Amino acid sequence: MTKLIQIGIVGYGNLGKGALLALEQNKDMELVGVFSRRDPSRIKTETKTPVYHISDICKFQNKIDVMILCGGSATDLPKQGPEIARLFNTIDSFDTHAKIPEYFQKMDEAARSNGKTSIISVGWDPGLFSIMRTMTEAILPDGDTYTFWGKGVSQGHSDAIRRVEGVKGAIQYTIPIEGALNRVRSGQRPDLKTGEKHLRECFVVAEEGSDKSKIEETIKKMPNYFADYTTIVHFISEEELKENHAKMPHGGFVIRSGQTERESSQIVEFSLNLASNPGFTSSVLVAYARAAFRLNKEGQVGAKSVLDVAPSYLSPKSNALLRKELL
Amino acid sequence: MTKLIQIGIVGYGNLGKGALLALEQNKDMELVGVFSRRDPSRIKTETKTPVYHISDICKFQNKIDVMILCGGSATDLPKQGPEIARLFNTIDSFDTHAKIPEYFQKMDEAARSNGKTSIISVGWDPGLFSIMRTMTEAILPDGDTYTFWGKGVSQGHSDAIRRVEGVKGAIQYTIPIEGALNRVRSGQRPDLKTGEKHLRECFVVAEEGSDKSKIEETIKKMPNYFADYTTIVHFISEEELKENHAKMPHGGFVIRSGQTERESSQIVEFSLNLASNPGFTSSVLVAYARAAFRLNKEGQVGAKSVLDVAPSYLSPKSNALLRKELL
Repeated sequence: MTKLIQIGIVGYGNLGKGALLALEQNKDMELVGVFSRRDPSRIKTETKTPVYHISDICKFQNKIDVMILCGGSATDLPKQGPEIARLFNTIDSFDTHAKIPEYFQKMDEAARSNGKTSIISVGWDPGLFSIMRTMTEAILPDGDTYTFWGKGVSQGHSDAIRRVEGVKGAIQYTIPIEGALNRVRSGQRPDLKTGEKHLRECFVVAEEGSDKSKIEETIKKMPNYFADYTTIVHFISEEELKENHAKMPHGGFVIRSGQTERESSQIVEFSLNLASNPGFTSSVLVAYARAAFRLNKEGQVGAKSVLDVAPSYLSPKSNALLRKELL
Repeated sequence: MTKLIQIGIVGYGNLGKGALLALEQNKDMELVGVFSRRDPSRIKTETKTPVYHISDICKFQNKIDVMILCGGSATDLPKQGPEIARLFNTIDSFDTHAKIPEYFQKMDEAARSNGKTSIISVGWDPGLFSIMRTMTEAILPDGDTYTFWGKGVSQGHSDAIRRVEGVKGAIQYTIPIEGALNRVRSGQRPDLKTGEKHLRECFVVAEEGSDKSKIEETIKKMPNYFADYTTIVHFISEEELKENHAKMPHGGFVIRSGQTERESSQIVEFSLNLASNPGFTSSVLVAYARAAFRLNKEGQVGAKSVLDVAPSYLSPKSNALLRKELL
């Protein structure tokens, strides 16, 4: 039997927990340990996987093939990423779009100088959506690409509401506007402004005695976050928030609407309908961990993005079997 | 300026014509010529591209980087493919699923022994649909993949009807059954038999004086083609057939319905809605011609399928620009 790919997980939040459970579904990989900045004795994993302090990570250099970095893009990955990429092949979900070129550069230097392979910005956006945007633009050069997000929870927007005075708890759903989606699907190639593609639905728990109409107005007028959108605010009880809004669904659509010869309309659509955003994202990370392992074996070192990885690298099946069964 | 990629087209049917027009949309490529088995003086291309007899193809070895093979899978490609793959990098749309492993082997030997690169089975199925099946199965190992075709014209089924006694002309549309699609989209993971996913709608022109009810019965009972499906037969006039059924729309859906941690339902859907099947397929071929050129420059020789090609190879944009704009 082939040796199993030895995996480590760095960071044990929603994404790390998702990766741990996703690895259970992949029989060609084995989880060696979870690494955390917290006190390991206080973390119990569902699968009884050992937890180590992150300061011990260098002791695992000969024991782990790929580290799945599950930290956040704001502060964790810019620091941790290059440090760990010097020691291990890595996968991460760095998603600050504007800073990707800079992050790529740092990861490339770290990984390349030590013969490691790092695949950055893995997930669905950036990730699978990026693949769809790239491929469909290349196939239909005379066309427009539309990305819609949702229906799903936006953590950034939920956090922004929670900072409003008098708000005790809140969640925000980004919802694609059906009419806009249908105009795009019809092949019209409309020019859609930001607020014409999505609406924002907020469920807010107000502090007792607070001014609800003032809270609603503050949310709706918030620049960048809500001012340019149709925003719906519902006030609910704390129980309702816990009961009905604890899940993290998400999804979205990438649509390329283009024209080929004699103005034939061609529409390509890719969509996700996810009951659990961290569950899906971590499953994408795990599939790309397999790719990083293989690319490194082939000597393809340095930083890569999902755009640099051929589909067959994600699958545990041999290329011959893939051609027979799935091509 | 970078030198343009020099392209040749072999075969000038619907696909070859589509490729010629698709190349007009790609400014980094230049069409050198069309090669045909027919008398070149009798073929006029829309773009005034020169047409050569296929027997002259070897004279272009230093002038053409990639040949786009637009012949059929039944007889053209199994013969032409390996011959041309010895001389040029090639792209083809070989789509006899059962014979792909054998064809791959022959193309691999031909291309590899002469330092060329051949990407086989390019298009949407096999092609983009194969990529979706492979990636989504790897990401969601606990899941089921469903492929639906249509609404679109099936040439094979249309031909089968035309062979029925008393039939003067016919066209057959394969139509995905909406109820089945919706069951799959709901995350049910149903076990669907062949005839439960598609229905077959036939538009038939009967010879004068022929027995329409007998024609209808013969069609509906035809084994493999229609017997296992709900089949609808309409009799129409020759004028109606010409007027309303001359186009070649097609499309389809690949849906992966899977479950991640704690049984969260995750649905990935990829769909195509194509006004012109040859127009789209040839646009896919042209994008992969760019990939074949680049792979060959990098020394990646032999046969490949779309599963072996990273998304960035399809785009005229640099990897750095792709990371900045599309990742």
